[in-house]
Amino acid sequence: MVGVDFGTLSGRAVVVRVADGAELGSAVHEYAERVIEHTLPGTDVRLGPDWALQSPRDWLDVLRLAVPGALAAAGVAPEDVIGVGADFTACTVLPTAADGTPLCFETPEQPHAWPKLWKHHAAQPHADRINELAARRGESWLPRYGGKISSEWEFAKALQVLEEAPEVYARAERWIEAADWIVWQLSGVESRNICTAGYKGVFQDGSYPSEYFLTALNPDFSGFVGKLATGVVGDDVNGTTLAPLGGLAGRLTGRAAAWTGLPEGVAVAVGNVDAHVTAAAADAVRPGQMVAIMGTSTCHIMPSDRLAEVPGMCGVVRDGIVPGLWGYEAGQSAVGDIFAWYVDNFGADGHERLTELAERQAVGAHGLVALDWFGGNRSVLVDHDLSGVIVGQTLATRPEDVYRALIESTAYGARMIVETFERSGVPVEEFVVAGGLLKNRFLMQVYADVLRRPLSVIGSDQGPALGAALRAAVAAGAYPGIGEAAAAMGKRTRAAYVPDQARADAYDRLYAQYRELHDHFGDGRMLHTLRAIRNEAAK
Amino acid sequence: MVGVDFGTLSGRAVVVRVADGAELGSAVHEYAERVIEHTLPGTDVRLGPDWALQSPRDWLDVLRLAVPGALAAAGVAPEDVIGVGADFTACTVLPTAADGTPLCFETPEQPHAWPKLWKHHAAQPHADRINELAARRGESWLPRYGGKISSEWEFAKALQVLEEAPEVYARAERWIEAADWIVWQLSGVESRNICTAGYKGVFQDGSYPSEYFLTALNPDFSGFVGKLATGVVGDDVNGTTLAPLGGLAGRLTGRAAAWTGLPEGVAVAVGNVDAHVTAAAADAVRPGQMVAIMGTSTCHIMPSDRLAEVPGMCGVVRDGIVPGLWGYEAGQSAVGDIFAWYVDNFGADGHERLTELAERQAVGAHGLVALDWFGGNRSVLVDHDLSGVIVGQTLATRPEDVYRALIESTAYGARMIVETFERSGVPVEEFVVAGGLLKNRFLMQVYADVLRRPLSVIGSDQGPALGAALRAAVAAGAYPGIGEAAAAMGKRTRAAYVPDQARADAYDRLYAQYRELHDHFGDGRMLHTLRAIRNEAAK
Repeated sequence: MVGVDFGTLSGRAVVVRVADGAELGSAVHEYAERVIEHTLPGTDVRLGPDWALQSPRDWLDVLRLAVPGALAAAGVAPEDVIGVGADFTACTVLPTAADGTPLCFETPEQPHAWPKLWKHHAAQPHADRINELAARRGESWLPRYGGKISSEWEFAKALQVLEEAPEVYARAERWIEAADWIVWQLSGVESRNICTAGYKGVFQDGSYPSEYFLTALNPDFSGFVGKLATGVVGDDVNGTTLAPLGGLAGRLTGRAAAWTGLPEGVAVAVGNVDAHVTAAAADAVRPGQMVAIMGTSTCHIMPSDRLAEVPGMCGVVRDGIVPGLWGYEAGQSAVGDIFAWYVDNFGADGHERLTELAERQAVGAHGLVALDWFGGNRSVLVDHDLSGVIVGQTLATRPEDVYRALIESTAYGARMIVETFERSGVPVEEFVVAGGLLKNRFLMQVYADVLRRPLSVIGSDQGPALGAALRAAVAAGAYPGIGEAAAAMGKRTRAAYVPDQARADAYDRLYAQYRELHDHFGDGRMLHTLRAIRNEAAK
Repeated sequence: MVGVDFGTLSGRAVVVRVADGAELGSAVHEYAERVIEHTLPGTDVRLGPDWALQSPRDWLDVLRLAVPGALAAAGVAPEDVIGVGADFTACTVLPTAADGTPLCFETPEQPHAWPKLWKHHAAQPHADRINELAARRGESWLPRYGGKISSEWEFAKALQVLEEAPEVYARAERWIEAADWIVWQLSGVESRNICTAGYKGVFQDGSYPSEYFLTALNPDFSGFVGKLATGVVGDDVNGTTLAPLGGLAGRLTGRAAAWTGLPEGVAVAVGNVDAHVTAAAADAVRPGQMVAIMGTSTCHIMPSDRLAEVPGMCGVVRDGIVPGLWGYEAGQSAVGDIFAWYVDNFGADGHERLTELAERQAVGAHGLVALDWFGGNRSVLVDHDLSGVIVGQTLATRPEDVYRALIESTAYGARMIVETFERSGVPVEEFVVAGGLLKNRFLMQVYADVLRRPLSVIGSDQGPALGAALRAAVAAGAYPGIGEAAAAMGKRTRAAYVPDQARADAYDRLYAQYRELHDHFGDGRMLHTLRAIRNEAAK
């Protein structure tokens, strides 16, 4: 079984044993173009602020280089591989021709022809209009996204293309998630997975936003859903066919077999999102198991048997994590990014030394509390124009004090999310951690203490790739469903971190201060003003 | 004329020409013991938190070394010197025997026998009790100090000695400001200057706090004023004789002549405070001339012909800066200290580079606003338990952004003080800057823009020593009064920095945010809670 995880800076292939999920070998390919933020490759065309693009050639190179590399590292014969699955960052989305050819292959000098990476944030004005109109019209899908959709998502990005480069929009016969595009390249079959359609494509209760709605945004946007809708596998809902998670998208083509070194004809699983496949890799796909994938940012994924409107969630999608359950997603815009920013700019000592010094302190000894909004706030306020606040510094404050306060601030942010779910009637039974921040044991203990609950941790440091492989195992028929595959192949240690009562009590007092700051600055009055002043001054 | 300035870490002597204030030569002596904060010199007696002591031997060494050094540097014959004046940090205060011998010379192992430096903050509980009782009794002197006296002042420090070391208190026949003690050493005559008596000794309307008041604090405190009151020169007010500023304290003794190399019998001026003498050195002793001595902290000194209760001022004292006017004092607890703390801990680039980078920015381009309370807030909130706040940081925030925001925060703090004076009916006609921060031209321009007024600057970088020499010139009879001496010897450049209209307008918007933060956090609810949590955790 091969899982391929397409991240922000690189792609990783992992060879996994079907029986127990053992990771036999892996290989990474760093994207040559990484994130395209300033100038289009091979041109001198400059991009505006907040743009972020990627190159499909980099993605194909992962198939060509990382997959054979992983096979070689595993020492596994290609003929023993029965399937391949891929997960991707999302919403990473691109315009293509009807045959799947990316438009940027034809007009590389045209910025809007390139794939827009998830963190392309230049469509904020378009998202604002979508939200404003949806709120005014009382669109039933809006509460499913915590009351606001993101500028990162399919409709906002597409509307930006339409209005800024109508000729590109017109040529784009398809507007497709990279997760589905890469599966198309592997299988030769176009499919649309139910996960990105729901979380990023605003597909709810069997349909995309209505023609009326799209026309009201811009008359030329009316036919947009035609660029999304397609059908090959899976449920046909109101004429729009989407592919279920764990489904079989198709079989590996000869061309893709040549790229990857895998046998032609093996199963290719339906595409999926990196965060969402990780839940299965952690064997955490039952109701109430919240998986926090903690890296540069944190994504919270949780299946539940209940549908509720949770304030500030990123989305709730039926069958969005596993078939048969509601899938919730929430998020913290910046977590590891905050610590990296701090160390790069203010903490010459580096993460390890700062952690070592911070760890020696008693809870609250630094006298600080911070708001973790340095990258805005996704959940529970859905406001990317918020910014960070640090309170309580004195002339005795040391770099490790601030570092610790920043770590704690993200833990408070996580607690705010958990409490919001529970207050909304969606119980959080278990908090499961995956992702790169797992390696900081001090940070994990802070989370356990602040959350006042044991933390489970994933047993793999390649969670997304393992999750992708696990989906492939289901697609290949090795397991009847994701739940069974997760139980056999997923890895999770329960109660790896247990809260300390005294520290938890001490954190309660600090968390009360955090909540006060949250309420005070959360209205955005001051923070929006400062941002507006900043933006004007920067002109 | 020789002026001797006793600072926190060193003493400086300057030889000054009587006719025009030209500085002919100077010398500095660094104190061997600097600030005694941890262990008593020559012992292993450890001090508690917030203690800060000094050694009188260091002060005498300034007379022995810096004064002859300055004479030599100036190439001036000792017989051409007609007087000597000294200024000191305040409230720096010590217990002595009746002959002026410091008690620490007798019992060096006893912490309370040593001089308490101005920044000794361990008497806060005693200050709290004094303030609480004064407020309850409606003491008429309390509003003269902005509603609160400081833990740094004579009564709080003395009460601490009484209650923690009653045997030292009993042996202390005198409780005397270092400014007066050093004059005693020079002239052999004990005097008490009207400036420290008023600002630090709570002497108002002709008397110290009453016996009733002292007895209510602690029955054994009742006779305390007897350790202060004395009379040799100047006005006899209600039985307590104080020495006027610019007065003649006495004549140089043979012993002091031997120390300093000056001729026996030259005039010794009445002692005074470093900040207060600087006003004369800047030729800014007329009503409405506010002199800001900007260094590690900022002290604001302003004569006025009006008496008003200005919220949060440090004090208003009749004849406290120049005879015949009310003298106002206000302060910002930390200014240069904030920038030093930031660079030492968070800004590896150093002051010059950070200033260079910060200077390039348009006003508000960093998107930040900060509260300059990293060392508490003296004026206008009189609350040393407040702490700093930084608002608006994002992952794009750079070290120079924060550095600039910190500089601006102190300018906002200064504007808050100026506005508070004017709102209270005490006009500020001119803002005059002295002190070490003058050398940062960018910072000065920020102040001009934020304050929306031209800045005058002192023409000497040895303002206190020049001011002390100027007082000596008056004491020696070279001028009839401080005003005349200041006009001849003081140095000031008007409108050295002029506000830019556009920048001033931009700062108005940021200052509005500062005011909001000031009002929100100024109640201390959150900041006191954080400090209380910190102090408990540190135990």
